[in-house]
Amino acid sequence: MSLDPIKPDLIPFLSSYLPPRQHDTKETKPFVTLTYAQSIDARISLGPGIRTTISDVETKVMTHYLRYHHDAILIGSGTVLADDPGLNCKWHRDTRDSKMDENSPRPVILDPSQKWRFKGSKMYDLFKNGEGKPPIVVVRGKPRLEEEHVKYLIMESTQEKIDWKILIERLSNEFGIKSIMVEGGAFVINDLLLRDDIVDSLIVTIGSTYLGENGVQVSPKSAISLMDVDWWKGKKDSIMVARLEPEKN
Amino acid sequence: MSLDPIKPDLIPFLSSYLPPRQHDTKETKPFVTLTYAQSIDARISLGPGIRTTISDVETKVMTHYLRYHHDAILIGSGTVLADDPGLNCKWHRDTRDSKMDENSPRPVILDPSQKWRFKGSKMYDLFKNGEGKPPIVVVRGKPRLEEEHVKYLIMESTQEKIDWKILIERLSNEFGIKSIMVEGGAFVINDLLLRDDIVDSLIVTIGSTYLGENGVQVSPKSAISLMDVDWWKGKKDSIMVARLEPEKN
Repeated sequence: MSLDPIKPDLIPFLSSYLPPRQHDTKETKPFVTLTYAQSIDARISLGPGIRTTISDVETKVMTHYLRYHHDAILIGSGTVLADDPGLNCKWHRDTRDSKMDENSPRPVILDPSQKWRFKGSKMYDLFKNGEGKPPIVVVRGKPRLEEEHVKYLIMESTQEKIDWKILIERLSNEFGIKSIMVEGGAFVINDLLLRDDIVDSLIVTIGSTYLGENGVQVSPKSAISLMDVDWWKGKKDSIMVARLEPEKN
Repeated sequence: MSLDPIKPDLIPFLSSYLPPRQHDTKETKPFVTLTYAQSIDARISLGPGIRTTISDVETKVMTHYLRYHHDAILIGSGTVLADDPGLNCKWHRDTRDSKMDENSPRPVILDPSQKWRFKGSKMYDLFKNGEGKPPIVVVRGKPRLEEEHVKYLIMESTQEKIDWKILIERLSNEFGIKSIMVEGGAFVINDLLLRDDIVDSLIVTIGSTYLGENGVQVSPKSAISLMDVDWWKGKKDSIMVARLEPEKN
């Protein structure tokens, strides 16, 4: 399956919300982009575990364009178990630059309770075909089963909540990851929407549909303000880019 | 308080989603426009009874422009009790056409359990100043108190749910109302989003903010599809216009 070309005006629209090209590897934390597609009623799926198409073809290619610009793509294991996503990058600048494994970000799977297996997944098939990278799996405690090709990042904390600061620091220091695109699911997004100290940019696609009150929603625990807001309008979807406004206190 | 001028490109953008000028008064049901402003996370307020500003000045004037084009503005008494809104129209085409009472739609307050009073409200003050019309109050059973200037529409049904078909038919037959703009609250909007037989157009302003999970949300009981979708992008807000896709069955 090949991608449609990206709408030309999306490129300048997104440019200042992407990780900088020459990322200062010493001084700064990894660049974190939070991105997801939702319905008008802020649902990302029809229900837990139901894979739901929201965005139109014209915005779908953007996901791959964004993946091209990030070292890693972070996602919760709930979403991975539900959707079995490929998480690779099909977009390339030109034919000299079309190797999917090179262009693809490294999947980072948050799987503290170790429910997910690489082998048998779509990600595994893509990796085997040279069309994607193998994942880093973030687990709590020593992995019960160490799969071939998988790297494990063992979180020592016994806390239920993820310590985002430590996680992105370790992804940077131990794996050289300088930019991370967070794609979901709702639990991860809702948590990170409150973290202006972690998230550098926010890219939300809004599809022109209502998924209804039983859908899985994105809405943070408390109200938040955005800054540097811009909108792109497509035929069926709209895209908002923004940064999280630092909390006043 | 005077209004900012409306953004010139909003006028053609909205035109085919407004009631037709020469509405055939005999054949058709009143034209119903469903319109509201929400946050990215589909909240219309921070919580029940909390008046919340969502839309920017550039889209705020649109509400008055829409009111100018409708005979009536329908709203639930919950929202009226919480917000004490004026519901009049401050927009006018030119100075020859600046009489606020003439331009204003007739407020229709859905107050089945008769909790709201006209006297003492902002609507009452505007009416007394010649800046708005007095309301029609929709009640269940005979009104306990009949207020001066108020017209009552008595719904005979003892059902909790509003019979929209009968209501808009009676607004048309008994009060000559040929176009109705529905502004809220969430209960009314969620109910009408499922009524493609009642609603002719949908106009949703999306403000670039998150109100958080405790906010009052708009999300219908089940998923719905839209058609004839178009988007307008402002600086801070985006506006979607659409029609409800007829249910397949």
